[in-house]
Amino acid sequence: MNRLPEYKDILQAAECISPYAKRTPVLTSTWFNRQTGGKLFFKCENFQKVGAFKFRGACNAVMLLDKTDAKKGVITHSSGNHAQAVALAASLNGYKATIVMPKNSPSVKVNAVREYGAEIVFCENTIESREETAKKIMENTGDVFIHPYNHPDVIAGQGTAAKELLDEQPDLDVIIVPVGGGGLMSGTLIAAKSINPKIEVIGAEPELADDAWRSFKSGQIEPVLRTDTIADGLRTSLGELTFSAIQNLADDIVTVPEESIIRDMRNVWERMKIIIEPSCAVPVSALMDGKISAEGKKAGIILTGGNVDLNSLPWL
Amino acid sequence: MNRLPEYKDILQAAECISPYAKRTPVLTSTWFNRQTGGKLFFKCENFQKVGAFKFRGACNAVMLLDKTDAKKGVITHSSGNHAQAVALAASLNGYKATIVMPKNSPSVKVNAVREYGAEIVFCENTIESREETAKKIMENTGDVFIHPYNHPDVIAGQGTAAKELLDEQPDLDVIIVPVGGGGLMSGTLIAAKSINPKIEVIGAEPELADDAWRSFKSGQIEPVLRTDTIADGLRTSLGELTFSAIQNLADDIVTVPEESIIRDMRNVWERMKIIIEPSCAVPVSALMDGKISAEGKKAGIILTGGNVDLNSLPWL
Repeated sequence: MNRLPEYKDILQAAECISPYAKRTPVLTSTWFNRQTGGKLFFKCENFQKVGAFKFRGACNAVMLLDKTDAKKGVITHSSGNHAQAVALAASLNGYKATIVMPKNSPSVKVNAVREYGAEIVFCENTIESREETAKKIMENTGDVFIHPYNHPDVIAGQGTAAKELLDEQPDLDVIIVPVGGGGLMSGTLIAAKSINPKIEVIGAEPELADDAWRSFKSGQIEPVLRTDTIADGLRTSLGELTFSAIQNLADDIVTVPEESIIRDMRNVWERMKIIIEPSCAVPVSALMDGKISAEGKKAGIILTGGNVDLNSLPWL
Repeated sequence: MNRLPEYKDILQAAECISPYAKRTPVLTSTWFNRQTGGKLFFKCENFQKVGAFKFRGACNAVMLLDKTDAKKGVITHSSGNHAQAVALAASLNGYKATIVMPKNSPSVKVNAVREYGAEIVFCENTIESREETAKKIMENTGDVFIHPYNHPDVIAGQGTAAKELLDEQPDLDVIIVPVGGGGLMSGTLIAAKSINPKIEVIGAEPELADDAWRSFKSGQIEPVLRTDTIADGLRTSLGELTFSAIQNLADDIVTVPEESIIRDMRNVWERMKIIIEPSCAVPVSALMDGKISAEGKKAGIILTGGNVDLNSLPWL
């Protein structure tokens, strides 16, 4: 069923994951309001199970699997948070999980995947190497593949974050999300535009991984050219499904430099007292750098995750 | 009015500060529940205005001042969070604030006091030096002194955190708070025991600043002997009012070593994705070290503040 989910699939996902996923809080910050001239509402998916929104999509996708197929095992490739998410979702169902991880994945994420009982297979730091490695394993084992973003049930699960945010703050003018593979942005677009077509949904990505911005402008999927942005959750290219959602529904995509990402990661830690990973800071920087204006608006920001290696902070 | 506040004063404080203070969220953590065998509820005062519960007490005390007296200015001495709290409470009322700070106060706290527009006067790192310095200034200026903890309106304000926690989780078996000067513990004791006399309230302090524990055992105020614990919010001795509340109402006080405080500060950052300062970790360590058992119980923990210098983390 290689089609985009509809809003009813997001509502079904919300029900399906509700016994397992957290309903995360929405925080505000006087300081950020003052800096941006808007009213910002931060949906704290860094407090989600496995420390990231990725659990929503993985949980929904694993729950919806055919049980006979899934008994052979589930497999995915991921630089980190989707890996933990699939590992936990599989273990909740008693399924075996194998995770293909690029060699440059942060150690905190590798360790967490191990803690959830999954088997890890390392590969090179490219999307091609991830896919090939996973494919070889699947040929031997018959494992079911859970794609990190280009998967209708994953996209439906990610859309539940925006739905919850809008349950709590129905009159947002704009929602800003980071774009990696585009799963969160696709789910957010479908949820938000179904609830209120007037809500703007804007993607934010690092200048060093601006593939979604280039794809949005050119009208075809442009691959990510480098994988060295500090925003390690955003080093992937769009898939066919996520590109089609973004192409048809997105209002805009903007990009921000590495210095801004590090500065605003620290600003969020210092001013809001919450731990976010670099990818999370990208939409915040889009506002702080004036790439998106929040002046006089109510803006929702999905803070995507909080898995950071506390031994190596980017500003030290 | 040098008497302990009653529960009605806490209710009045809750109303008085409600337009200014945040109603902070209560978070849970599967990982900490598994480690301690209990159900833990973390009241996140690190998300409070000025990043600490201290705003509750200072706000209440400044709001209740006689306006003619307060126009001369308000003054206090504090190693940090009470300083920021008085500075902000004064500025909200258009009063001038002077803050006496020990020379070893964390720079992040000194800078924050400056941001709120208060004047800072530095003193030696002893309680005697703080008091003398403040006294000299008051003789010249007529400033009104807002004691950081030995003040009925401050204690009433601090009690509103426990009241909110119990509004949300009425069937807690035990509440654990850190003890510095004892303002939070006094307010918590009065609130919790008035709401339900069966709730245990236990104080936790660093072994290196175990004055409240010694006072509780000896039956008289014992001074703090060293000021070098990493828990910089807990380097003060009890006052007459706070000692009397603790002596009459507390169930127990326990102490924890420095290594545990650093370990659990990091555990909270890593597992809960929130930033807490070392003082906050002290009640968490009391549970993690088994000094207090949460086995089969519902335990409330007041996380007191999140003002940390992000350039110097204790585990690096």
